Parts: sequence; structure tokens; C-alpha cells
Amino acid sequence: MNDRPIKDLLRAGAGVDLNAIDTSGTPGFSGDKHDGEKALEVGAAQLADLQERLFAASRTGGSAQSVLLVLQAMDTAGKGGIVKHVVGSVDPQGVMLHAFKRPTPEEDKHDFLWRVRPHLPGPGMLAVFDRSHYEEVLIHKVRHLSTPEQIEERYGQITAFENEVIAAGTTIVKVMLHISAEEQKARLGERLAQPEKYWKYNPGDIDEREFWPAYMDAYRIAIERTSTDAAPWYVVPADRKWYARLAVQHLLLDALSGLHLEWPPANFDVAVEKSRLAAS
Amino acid sequence: MNDRPIKDLLRAGAGVDLNAIDTSGTPGFSGDKHDGEKALEVGAAQLADLQERLFAASRTGGSAQSVLLVLQAMDTAGKGGIVKHVVGSVDPQGVMLHAFKRPTPEEDKHDFLWRVRPHLPGPGMLAVFDRSHYEEVLIHKVRHLSTPEQIEERYGQITAFENEVIAAGTTIVKVMLHISAEEQKARLGERLAQPEKYWKYNPGDIDEREFWPAYMDAYRIAIERTSTDAAPWYVVPADRKWYARLAVQHLLLDALSGLHLEWPPANFDVAVEKSRLAAS
Repeated sequence: MNDRPIKDLLRAGAGVDLNAIDTSGTPGFSGDKHDGEKALEVGAAQLADLQERLFAASRTGGSAQSVLLVLQAMDTAGKGGIVKHVVGSVDPQGVMLHAFKRPTPEEDKHDFLWRVRPHLPGPGMLAVFDRSHYEEVLIHKVRHLSTPEQIEERYGQITAFENEVIAAGTTIVKVMLHISAEEQKARLGERLAQPEKYWKYNPGDIDEREFWPAYMDAYRIAIERTSTDAAPWYVVPADRKWYARLAVQHLLLDALSGLHLEWPPANFDVAVEKSRLAAS
Repeated sequence: MNDRPIKDLLRAGAGVDLNAIDTSGTPGFSGDKHDGEKALEVGAAQLADLQERLFAASRTGGSAQSVLLVLQAMDTAGKGGIVKHVVGSVDPQGVMLHAFKRPTPEEDKHDFLWRVRPHLPGPGMLAVFDRSHYEEVLIHKVRHLSTPEQIEERYGQITAFENEVIAAGTTIVKVMLHISAEEQKARLGERLAQPEKYWKYNPGDIDEREFWPAYMDAYRIAIERTSTDAAPWYVVPADRKWYARLAVQHLLLDALSGLHLEWPPANFDVAVEKSRLAAS
């Protein structure tokens, strides 16, 4: 990565214009795909190191710090690829991953944030939400699954909830992977062309394509209403998978670097333990 | 890997003699560390492919198949390295990982298998137990945390439990990583020599070293009493980390290959969907 920090280039909030963003762009990175893949490898080692420090600090250092990556996107935008290729490069023992599906009847009985809380990261953990509490202001708005009043109320509830999570020690990184409708069409076409990808194809995805402009509008409003200094949104151009992965990796690297993680000091007397070990 | 299949070489049951096993051996593999690391890379791609098939089969194929890897070992034997370097090579979305710690007061109120059940793999998942229900016949036996009668009863309870899990569609792979007391001493020494490893060091580990023969005896009995045709134990020599990783990877590859996983067929009309996509 070079030029301005990627987080400044991708940060989105009031006035965001999703239609004006080039979904095939590579803001902050001037190399090509090959360069991007090389850079991802370099970043993977850095991310693994920082994640281990985060984990270690919670174990013997008493730190309550943690990180939460929220991934939102239209179908096929590459959430799974981020999980596999970016999050997959760190030690699985320090990762909590949850994919939010259609709420169960039990979940529907509760406030929309109820089902989210159990999946928040514990101390030292990197949690990833594959979809999230934002579905309740996205598909719910587009498909009228909630009333306009309910949806209106949720923006404030989300901000209050996220502030509470941040106060408990969690750094939140909110990412919208932004692809074009044309790119989605090409990716769905690939799934239909390869029998080993059939299982990823869902006919309902085509129905949702009809609502593309409505989804973009719902995303715009959600980003405008919930992008805060403490938990900003990042809109990541995602037509080029290699760039999206590199960008999210660098957002995580930035979040972890900001925690100034040091290896925790020994909570025992090193000399004494060396003697005990020698005698054992 | 070459020679006889590794699973035949490492399988243990009645008559197992842990003291007679060379913990620095590399059964079934004639190469050196460099060769072993190369082989691990080759296997990683195979494992990722098979795991994706397992996951896919559960999604649209309706398969209930899953895999459970049980890892037991003395401290420093390398359970964490197996998770990071073997399990870490597959898509995190298909992995459930649980580290069993000292039971909570709530867990202690229940049968010892109660806390295990929620962590069993769902359809299509690869679950990993970092320690497991076997602690209740290992440390409990060595440290007299349960009565001899309780421990005696548990071997049968474990076998019945595992048979039930297998009947529900889960393939169980039970691994004891087997290191020597000398190798453990060296590894603890490394943790004491490097400040970035202090967080992994626990003074209690030295106390446990005193009970090494008792632990080996408890492992022997557990293996003898619970190694079944349906869920055999494998004792993996683990003084060489590269070999232990390769061996566990191959045990998993063997388990997954045995499921004869095919990509699930389309649960939609491909031609119809292609038309719908083109028109969208």
C-alpha cells in the first residue's frame, strides 16, 4: 500500500455516493494483481503477529482489548473470500466467526440486537460477522420486513450498541464490500457454469438483483446514519477480489497497530522458574 | 507419505506401550524436515478441497456428515501448532474449534459429557477439540479429582457417547500427541528464554512434570479402554513438530477421503437459472 492511508481513502459517512464509487478501483494501491497478491502475503505475516499479541495480552496481560470485523455486502461480493484469505491467515484459536442467517423464530421474539451479543469478541479475540445487525436496516428496509418507524429507530440503537461495545474494549471495523451489478452477474454466471460451484448458487439471488437500486439506497442511509468517529464505515471496491482482500487486511492491520500491542510481561519469576525447570 | 498407511502405523489400542514408542520417530515418512514441510503444503491443498466438499454436501446435498478431531497431549506437545498449521489451512467457515479448560462451576454440576455436546460438529463441519472429555479420565485420574469408581464408569460412558456421535454422521479422529519428558523440558526452556513466549508459560506445568509416569499410565488405560474400530486412537510421535503436523494432516485426509465426498448436484434447473440471470 502507498499514497494516502487506505483507511482515509475508503472511509465513508455523510454524503457517501455509492454510485459514484468505482467498484473496480484500487484506491491507495498502484500495483497490479500480482503485486497485490505479493502484498497480501507480506501483510498476512504482520497480521498473524499482531493477532497473536492481541491474544497474548488478554491471556496473561489482563487486557480486555478485542477486534470486531463487520462484513456487509451484496451476494457474491466476496465476504467468504475475505474470511478465507484474510482472516484465514491468523491462528484459528484467536478467531470467532459467525455468519448471520435469517433469524430463527426464537431470535425473532427478541430485540434485533439480542442474537448479536453472544457473538461479540471476548478479550483478545478477533471476531468476524459475516452479515450482522445491519441486515435489519438493509434487507428489512428493501423488503419491508419491518415498518419504516422500526427501521428509523434502529439506526440510533445500532450506534448506541456499538458505542457500548467500543467502551468495553472492542475496536470495530465496518466494511461494505462494494461490487457492481454487472460484476455480480458475471460471478453468478460462473457459479452456474461450474458444477463444483452449484452449491453456492441460490435462485433467490436473482430475485434480489431486481432490488439493486433499493439496496444501494439502504446501504447509503445505513452508512450515513451509523458511520461514527469511533466506528466508521469503509466502502471497499470489490470487483477485483485481490484488492478487496488487501484493503480489508490493511484495515485490520491498521486497527491492530492502533492498539500498540506489546508482549505481556512474565507473571512469574523467570529465574525461579528456570531453576525449577532444571530440577524437574 | 509412503510405506504403510500412516493410520495403520499409528493406531493404538489394547497392549499399547507408550514408553516403547519413539517420540522422535517419523513412522510412515522417510523424508527429512524439509521434505515434511513440502509434503504438508501439498496436503494442505488436498485438505482444503475435501473440507469444502464436506461443507458443500451439507449445504445443498442434505448430508449430515461431519468430522471431529480430538487432540490430547501433555503440555507443549503441539496441540496449538496442529490447530494453526493443519486445521488453519482450511476455510475457517467450516471449522468449529473449542479448547476445553478447567470446568466452570456450572459445568461441574452436570455429567462430564454435558459440556461437550454443544461443541460437536454440525453437518458439514470440521470440529476440533483442544483437550476434551478425556480430561476426566486423565488429569482426574492422576490428580484424584474423581473417585476410582467414577473414572472406571467413564470409559464405558465415553465409548457409548462416541458411538452415538458416530451414528449421527460424525467421523471421529482421536489423537494423542506423544512427546518425551526431555522434549517438554526443552520446550518449556524455550518459553522461559524468550519474552514473547512468556505468555505461554504456566508455572503449574512444572508441577505436572512430576506426575509424568502417572499421566502416561492414565493415557495408556484410556487408549486401551476407548480405542474402538469405529473411533480408534492414534498415538502420534510429536518430538518433531513437522512430523506430528504431517501425520495429523494425513489422518484427517484419510478420514475425509473415506467419506467419498462428491460435489452436490444442483437443486435448481441450471438452464432456467441461466436464462433468468441473462434477463436480470
